[in-house]
Amino acid sequence: MAPRKQQEIFDATLRLVAEKGYDGLTVEGVAERSGVNKTTIYRWWPSKAALLGAALVESDVLGFEPVDTGSLRGDLVALVEGVIRLLTEPPAADIALAALAAAVRHPELDARHFFADRLAKEREIFERAARRGELAASADPMLVIDLLAGAVWARVVLRGLRAPDDFAAKAVSALLDGV
Amino acid sequence: MAPRKQQEIFDATLRLVAEKGYDGLTVEGVAERSGVNKTTIYRWWPSKAALLGAALVESDVLGFEPVDTGSLRGDLVALVEGVIRLLTEPPAADIALAALAAAVRHPELDARHFFADRLAKEREIFERAARRGELAASADPMLVIDLLAGAVWARVVLRGLRAPDDFAAKAVSALLDGV
Repeated sequence: MAPRKQQEIFDATLRLVAEKGYDGLTVEGVAERSGVNKTTIYRWWPSKAALLGAALVESDVLGFEPVDTGSLRGDLVALVEGVIRLLTEPPAADIALAALAAAVRHPELDARHFFADRLAKEREIFERAARRGELAASADPMLVIDLLAGAVWARVVLRGLRAPDDFAAKAVSALLDGV
Repeated sequence: MAPRKQQEIFDATLRLVAEKGYDGLTVEGVAERSGVNKTTIYRWWPSKAALLGAALVESDVLGFEPVDTGSLRGDLVALVEGVIRLLTEPPAADIALAALAAAVRHPELDARHFFADRLAKEREIFERAARRGELAASADPMLVIDLLAGAVWARVVLRGLRAPDDFAAKAVSALLDGV
């Protein structure tokens, strides 16, 4: 399938799940909105769970590239600010929250690929920091990401509070300088 | 209402939301399961959102008391281990995840009281640590809790992975000793 057509299918999938939730997402609806035949979509993705899983990883809307600021601190602050934007700015926020709600209730929707794919990219930050001698060899990238990204989820999604402007700097400082 | 009757209503509410999701939760269903008249329930909680919100905060099932281990490190490790249990052991895990999915899709269900109530209790840990001189006056309890509890949510709920046995100790060490 042409990459552009595929992006249109993914966009339609993510917009539909954001608007209607997972229960309201149908391959028929995606076919109608993207102008691609339902049978063609099913040939590539055998279920709506498979389609949404692929869209979460592949769509440009949730695309993620770690920023190289020249320091571990700067890179991590940029990463936390990116998660804040992901969880607060439409359309990404509506998509992320609808996908979370769906993944919690529907184990057949495997959101693990989305987070595994992000972590593979986030590892660059830690490899650069190790090369600069900023990080102990024993540092655990997944744990650092879980602490920092998890803090944003906790503040914004669970507590339903705004992240203050200095949230990213303070969260990174708590990790790098201690509480 | 007698406290015991109230707990029976809350238990029925939480069991129903865990089994059927928020859409399947009805005041009628809670009335049937708890043996309390529907009209009585409505007199106390005007909607199912209000009933579930109260049940999350007041039920013994999700009850929380911070442990006093004698050190900030020990208290925080116990706290993280408690969040791991909350998110992995039934029935609490089913309730917590169903409530999360509901809160994300239904803003009228205000989960903020649940987290605010927990934070009020968690502050004890930081007050004890400050009295022992273990913590800078500038430390931000909400940020520390968001980092630690958020890390558990990220690992267990978002990534869908098991938290290793040393997860709590390593997460707390990353904060207290630096990464």
